[in-house]
Amino acid sequence: MSPTMSQISARFLAARAATEALCAPLEYDDQLVQSAEFVSPPKWHLAHTSWFFETFLLIPFQSQYRVFDGEFNYLFNSYYESLGSRVARPRRGSISRPTLAKVRDYRTYVTNQMAALLASVESPEITRLVELGIHHEQQHQELLLMDIKHILHQNPAPPAYFGTSSPGSAALPLAFSLFDGGLIEMGHSGAGFCFDNETPRHRVFLAPFALANRAVSNGEYLQFIQDGGYREARWWLSDGWDAVNRNGWTAPLYWQETKDQWSIFTLHGLRTLAPDEPVTHVSGYEAQAFARWRGTRLPTEAEWEFAMTTSPESLPWGRVWEWTRSAYGPYPGYRAEEGALGEYNGKFMSNQLVLRGGCDATPAGHTRATYRNFYSPEMRWQFAGIRLAKDPA
Amino acid sequence: MSPTMSQISARFLAARAATEALCAPLEYDDQLVQSAEFVSPPKWHLAHTSWFFETFLLIPFQSQYRVFDGEFNYLFNSYYESLGSRVARPRRGSISRPTLAKVRDYRTYVTNQMAALLASVESPEITRLVELGIHHEQQHQELLLMDIKHILHQNPAPPAYFGTSSPGSAALPLAFSLFDGGLIEMGHSGAGFCFDNETPRHRVFLAPFALANRAVSNGEYLQFIQDGGYREARWWLSDGWDAVNRNGWTAPLYWQETKDQWSIFTLHGLRTLAPDEPVTHVSGYEAQAFARWRGTRLPTEAEWEFAMTTSPESLPWGRVWEWTRSAYGPYPGYRAEEGALGEYNGKFMSNQLVLRGGCDATPAGHTRATYRNFYSPEMRWQFAGIRLAKDPA
Amino acid sequence: MSPTMSQISARFLAARAATEALCAPLEYDDQLVQSAEFVSPPKWHLAHTSWFFETFLLIPFQSQYRVFDGEFNYLFNSYYESLGSRVARPRRGSISRPTLAKVRDYRTYVTNQMAALLASVESPEITRLVELGIHHEQQHQELLLMDIKHILHQNPAPPAYFGTSSPGSAALPLAFSLFDGGLIEMGHSGAGFCFDNETPRHRVFLAPFALANRAVSNGEYLQFIQDGGYREARWWLSDGWDAVNRNGWTAPLYWQETKDQWSIFTLHGLRTLAPDEPVTHVSGYEAQAFARWRGTRLPTEAEWEFAMTTSPESLPWGRVWEWTRSAYGPYPGYRAEEGALGEYNGKFMSNQLVLRGGCDATPAGHTRATYRNFYSPEMRWQFAGIRLAKDPA
Amino acid sequence: MSPTMSQISARFLAARAATEALCAPLEYDDQLVQSAEFVSPPKWHLAHTSWFFETFLLIPFQSQYRVFDGEFNYLFNSYYESLGSRVARPRRGSISRPTLAKVRDYRTYVTNQMAALLASVESPEITRLVELGIHHEQQHQELLLMDIKHILHQNPAPPAYFGTSSPGSAALPLAFSLFDGGLIEMGHSGAGFCFDNETPRHRVFLAPFALANRAVSNGEYLQFIQDGGYREARWWLSDGWDAVNRNGWTAPLYWQETKDQWSIFTLHGLRTLAPDEPVTHVSGYEAQAFARWRGTRLPTEAEWEFAMTTSPESLPWGRVWEWTRSAYGPYPGYRAEEGALGEYNGKFMSNQLVLRGGCDATPAGHTRATYRNFYSPEMRWQFAGIRLAKDPA
Repeated sequence: MSPTMSQISARFLAARAATEALCAPLEYDDQLVQSAEFVSPPKWHLAHTSWFFETFLLIPFQSQYRVFDGEFNYLFNSYYESLGSRVARPRRGSISRPTLAKVRDYRTYVTNQMAALLASVESPEITRLVELGIHHEQQHQELLLMDIKHILHQNPAPPAYFGTSSPGSAALPLAFSLFDGGLIEMGHSGAGFCFDNETPRHRVFLAPFALANRAVSNGEYLQFIQDGGYREARWWLSDGWDAVNRNGWTAPLYWQETKDQWSIFTLHGLRTLAPDEPVTHVSGYEAQAFARWRGTRLPTEAEWEFAMTTSPESLPWGRVWEWTRSAYGPYPGYRAEEGALGEYNGKFMSNQLVLRGGCDATPAGHTRATYRNFYSPEMRWQFAGIRLAKDPA
Repeated sequence: MSPTMSQISARFLAARAATEALCAPLEYDDQLVQSAEFVSPPKWHLAHTSWFFETFLLIPFQSQYRVFDGEFNYLFNSYYESLGSRVARPRRGSISRPTLAKVRDYRTYVTNQMAALLASVESPEITRLVELGIHHEQQHQELLLMDIKHILHQNPAPPAYFGTSSPGSAALPLAFSLFDGGLIEMGHSGAGFCFDNETPRHRVFLAPFALANRAVSNGEYLQFIQDGGYREARWWLSDGWDAVNRNGWTAPLYWQETKDQWSIFTLHGLRTLAPDEPVTHVSGYEAQAFARWRGTRLPTEAEWEFAMTTSPESLPWGRVWEWTRSAYGPYPGYRAEEGALGEYNGKFMSNQLVLRGGCDATPAGHTRATYRNFYSPEMRWQFAGIRLAKDPA
Repeated sequence: MSPTMSQISARFLAARAATEALCAPLEYDDQLVQSAEFVSPPKWHLAHTSWFFETFLLIPFQSQYRVFDGEFNYLFNSYYESLGSRVARPRRGSISRPTLAKVRDYRTYVTNQMAALLASVESPEITRLVELGIHHEQQHQELLLMDIKHILHQNPAPPAYFGTSSPGSAALPLAFSLFDGGLIEMGHSGAGFCFDNETPRHRVFLAPFALANRAVSNGEYLQFIQDGGYREARWWLSDGWDAVNRNGWTAPLYWQETKDQWSIFTLHGLRTLAPDEPVTHVSGYEAQAFARWRGTRLPTEAEWEFAMTTSPESLPWGRVWEWTRSAYGPYPGYRAEEGALGEYNGKFMSNQLVLRGGCDATPAGHTRATYRNFYSPEMRWQFAGIRLAKDPA
Repeated sequence: MSPTMSQISARFLAARAATEALCAPLEYDDQLVQSAEFVSPPKWHLAHTSWFFETFLLIPFQSQYRVFDGEFNYLFNSYYESLGSRVARPRRGSISRPTLAKVRDYRTYVTNQMAALLASVESPEITRLVELGIHHEQQHQELLLMDIKHILHQNPAPPAYFGTSSPGSAALPLAFSLFDGGLIEMGHSGAGFCFDNETPRHRVFLAPFALANRAVSNGEYLQFIQDGGYREARWWLSDGWDAVNRNGWTAPLYWQETKDQWSIFTLHGLRTLAPDEPVTHVSGYEAQAFARWRGTRLPTEAEWEFAMTTSPESLPWGRVWEWTRSAYGPYPGYRAEEGALGEYNGKFMSNQLVLRGGCDATPAGHTRATYRNFYSPEMRWQFAGIRLAKDPA
């Protein structure tokens, strides 16, 4: 059953507030920095998520809507070619106007206008688009945490974002669950929200496989480092070996070694490596090399989805995104949405790998077993880890 | 049944002679040029294919074999990390010693030593490796023609490589054949030669699909250009649109427009565009954009293989390689060979698309319906074209 | 006569206040942006000029001085290799901590500590170093205006920095004054402050020359553009022609053409081109090409200094820096200071041209006829213009 | 007195033969390689020097001259913008046609046509241009040796170009000669040939200075290395220190260290470092840093010329080019030639340093004390060394 307008309105307001809450612990200065081409300043996220609602809801559906500022479409359009020209991504951090204070006004204005819209009209199309906008905003909540971590880490003495943290629990012994496979179905079905790239549900044939009961831990990954894993070409894909040498990788992002002691920069500040925590901030290449070094492999996304939907209790997930070995492509019969929103997912279907699951930074309620996250295999600033698979003996 | 040693010896000698015949029409100077990072000088191909036999056959199996020159492993190893350091690929054209004359001596020496080996020993392992070496040499024959074309094209007045050509036949009307799909098998089986990446044969589920009866023609592709295809983002993948703008693409490689007349540089020299010939030298991005503009899509490699093995007569192929939308990855249960030859195919399984079929430059007998060729979607100097697919209405 | 401590203290406080006044019209956000590798965020200038006093005065001379923050030497050292490692210049804009608010505290702390030092001790060495620090701060005041202009210009609708401006006066008719030259002296002498690179005063032989009575105007420069100056190689140095093509230059920085009408972004906002104003934001290459197109040349720095010290009334200067054709190098007998301050000027004596004069953004009292400013000939964000010279007929 | 036509004809033929003799020891393959952007293939030099005579002598002066090949102006024009478009410099090595064999025919054709021209006409203008062409060809003879050395060095086992070499003599003890300076004259005068950049002769005032009696030796330079000279910023100009780190310099070009033993690749092959030989293949930055480390400096070009013209016996020169600290610029009153030949020298007057003297690779008769050679301070493949200067105590 579709949500009522008042339900959706409440969820909308909650999502907006959640984004702002993420920025609350930051200094004003932190919110203006673009620390790498792939990072956006928090200020930009605050504005872009507002632009999304303005562009796809308020302008088409709110009668006599007055655009907050005519220049903002140029400034805060992320990648929608069909909506006109826009600031080049690497220059987002060079734009000082509007100020963060003004951007906050923009947020408030859009939130209020949206609340008014939702109170006054009711249509399935609006419901659908608001739902998409909420999920879009949730994606940016996770991006915000990724970018905040990267931004804070630029500082010579990187500050903590969160306060104290409770100690993690001990990792389970690593074990593999066997699956028979066969002709299965994958992809989203049912009434709940999903992105277009999760559809259509379709049949896939799976050979038998085994999947690990948990993500690889820091301690396990450290053994790979100590065994010289970053110095031996044989574990790596050719592009991965090239990335190791070009980037000078010797450990995951945010790891640092001081006098044979490893520390990791986390959102709780710099911490001594916790061996039982899941390893994260590894590229797809590192995930693949580690799996090969262990005599295993990465799962395909079909294996992952099948296992997680058939044995959800025995294979917990959600602390870190899990690299698969599946290239991100269209499902058989996939059709992108018409218009600008067709650019949301479809045009990125090249040179990326699918990640499945979710992570500590993913908003509650935003994950599902059919969700397809995707990144270039060289990217490491997302919270990505490793789950091992293997072929039955 | 396995070939006899005298059969394999004859095929070996024929392959060696065929490589040399490809260089015969060239000037000495043409054979020394590296016109781009991805191109190798013909001299290098002549040497590398000899190094392959020396490294994998003569050194391990020919007793008291005297290596022709101890430095050649450094110079002519292509990408085998496990065989030691080597000349960086972009520097292949900077190495003047050994001279081409010396490389020819090396070829003769290796050919003669191999002939002696094949005359004196008999073992399934040697047979298997010689067969691999022959197929390797055949791959380089096609690479030679790709590289020769690129090299000759650097010259302000690019010379023809071949003499006269007979006119091509008219293209068939474009039509689509329907396939029901279902749970099918793909991958190589049987006794004949194949590369490790074609195995293991495995089951795949296919939804119904339709496949075009021939490759897209120059004339059809020209309509895409004339319709502004290179200027509209909506047809392109995001990476493809970036490549269009970064490289300034406005047509396939080797096409040039003079006063509204299109010409194409071919191995027969510069020719007026022949509308019925299959379009070639398009990137994977151009193939995808063209297909989308036509309201179609590229086939998956499973669809292609299934169609070609079940309806081979009605869907001729082999003039141009055909881009698929399948990322190049391991088949379920794939295992790379042990040792250095394990680097032959497996380590390239990222950021590439599979192409199927073969082309005019592929040696006779080198193609098969299970063959998996692969290139980065941005590469255009290979003889790659487009076959359209679609979902049934 | 040397200034008294109370005089120097007053000048010190005035210089500190002047820097802060320059930032007053800015938004907080403007002060955090690094819009190009050669630009520094205003926040960085505020901190670096404080670091200078802390490093060269407070730490060595103020007993029991407590360093404000031990990390600031790493963060706010500009280029002094002998003072240890430092943030790479292009990353200055990526550092969010300390915040601007904290940097302002740092300024206040340093200013107060310095005031206390100056009230309590008296030594010629301290006087000399404070004077150097004041001149250093004044140099950064001009850099601030250069950087602020560049930063504001990034915005799609660049805001004005200043309010209204009074209209400029009409340009004088261009005329040349003749100088006989001969064996003259150049370089600084006397008791007043100068930088080490202005010394020692030394003899130079000058042939007769003629120097223009004013800087080239926008209107005169526009004629060069309209005559195709940016499209003809013959006016340009080889490196200059390369820069034109590599950077796509068609006019000075901040000029923009709309429907055959030229506008210029200024600190007063976007203005219609004022033909009588001196042209500025030209590179040394553009200055040289313009001079050649006019059948003239740029002056040498010796010619400039001689003319300005012998005929100061008839040849007014100071609105824009004036490119000379002299490479920036050491005067005969030049000795850099000992220690870290020896890096202030001496190590930049390669690949730069000398500019003479001063500009509207130069603090009053900071210019003198012996002052040697220097930039790479490709740089354009400084307020640099052109004065013509020629050889007598 | 001007040379007679038969004298000039004999010198012309000798210069042409000398160029060809330099290529005689090479393999065909060596002559086709472009090992770096700044290197040209010997084949290109052979053609370009012929193009020079064809363009500036045969086409304007030989009646009914038939151009050898109309495309060669595009292919073999080096940098003359006013003569039309040309192959981009980094692509010279990618052009396989014409072949070297054809280029040799071109040389013979041009030489013969020139001989005919010189036998039939007589004019001061032709004499002047042939003389320029001979000097141009001699410059390329030195460039050929620079480029050949670089090309041969690419090979993993670089071959020797020359046969045996006689041992060098012991270096003189390093001593400095004092010069009073004063108002002196510099620049070319008299009837002999010179390039336009050596004129006009003009007065310069020199302070007293001291100049070393010989170039710095390998042994002396080795002490700088062993003293950590490449690891200490304080000896270096800022651009030089950047070049050290960017290029990873730890010694001059062609030096290599094996087990604490230094060897140098020379045109006679790899040799153990000869301590008494003059150091060469240093950049201007290394020359400057070495001089500073020794408590000395580089001479200005005026000092060098004055010393060498007033004390030629006591200060022998000519084994290696000697870096000066003078930027390459126009002499007072300098005028470039009219037309295309005006591009010969004048347009390079930025970002380069003057070198004086000559080297073992300079053709006999090509050097003179007023000769101004010039290179970017980062270049090292020319035969450049160091002569020290200092200010009197």
